[in-house]
Amino acid sequence: ELFVLTYGALVAQLCKDYEKDEDVNTCLDRMGYGIGVRLIDDFLARSAVKKCRSYSETADMIAQVAFKMYLGVTPSVSCSSAAGNEFSLILDKNPLVDFVEELPAERASLCYCNILCGVIRGALEMVHLAAEVTFLQDRLKGDAVTEIGITFLRKAED
Amino acid sequence: ELFVLTYGALVAQLCKDYEKDEDVNTCLDRMGYGIGVRLIDDFLARSAVKKCRSYSETADMIAQVAFKMYLGVTPSVSCSSAAGNEFSLILDKNPLVDFVEELPAERASLCYCNILCGVIRGALEMVHLAAEVTFLQDRLKGDAVTEIGITFLRKAED
Repeated sequence: ELFVLTYGALVAQLCKDYEKDEDVNTCLDRMGYGIGVRLIDDFLARSAVKKCRSYSETADMIAQVAFKMYLGVTPSVSCSSAAGNEFSLILDKNPLVDFVEELPAERASLCYCNILCGVIRGALEMVHLAAEVTFLQDRLKGDAVTEIGITFLRKAED
Repeated sequence: ELFVLTYGALVAQLCKDYEKDEDVNTCLDRMGYGIGVRLIDDFLARSAVKKCRSYSETADMIAQVAFKMYLGVTPSVSCSSAAGNEFSLILDKNPLVDFVEELPAERASLCYCNILCGVIRGALEMVHLAAEVTFLQDRLKGDAVTEIGITFLRKAED
């Protein structure tokens, strides 16, 4: 709907502005970061969630509460490291690409939804959790599912 | 929420890209047009509305069904010409500016929400109604309300 199409217009504009896919990806991630930093207040107010006590709880919260609230979908979560600090959010359906058929050949390295990584990273930072967030798989690039990887780096003292 | 903040990031990017407010306004309007052209199918499918029989019905439909569906607000509508082809949508509350405090002094001519004009114009054109759509008042510019003017130009034969 309106949001999805507006996001498409944003990505198209960035593709006009930057020749390299990497630069578009960086820009989307940076924009997302700024959004996450501001969105966290809205999220905490509307969700009325309690403080998470583990990385695992945090990942579940992102998938089951935040994704549901803002994108209307609930990714499945899997833990992908023995250390318990790496998680994958697996999206069978990604509403942000509803109107995207496929990436143009000359934009093969574009992470179309990279803004989501930035949003998650920015929001986590505001609750004192440093994380790396990247797309590991993307249906737009021919993968079977869309997978966002979250690696928690450390937990800052409150 | 996410949409409102993403829209803000889009406007900020265009302000980086274009020095003149007029160019940003034009770009937002053009983007909106492309969105409206695609959004109309979604709107007709989801709203299941009947064909409008007058400009007045059309303006009411935009305010009461389309704005409600996509932005969650219902502007009031007034007809502002004896000829019955000019309407105003008056928004007491504009969700798109929820996170905007005020326009920076050097961006005094920016029509921050100009994408909405383009969306309306594009969607109307797809149902064979040519219209001019512009902001007449904007709370971001110190006006008491936000007012979008729609002037229907002619009705094309079906």
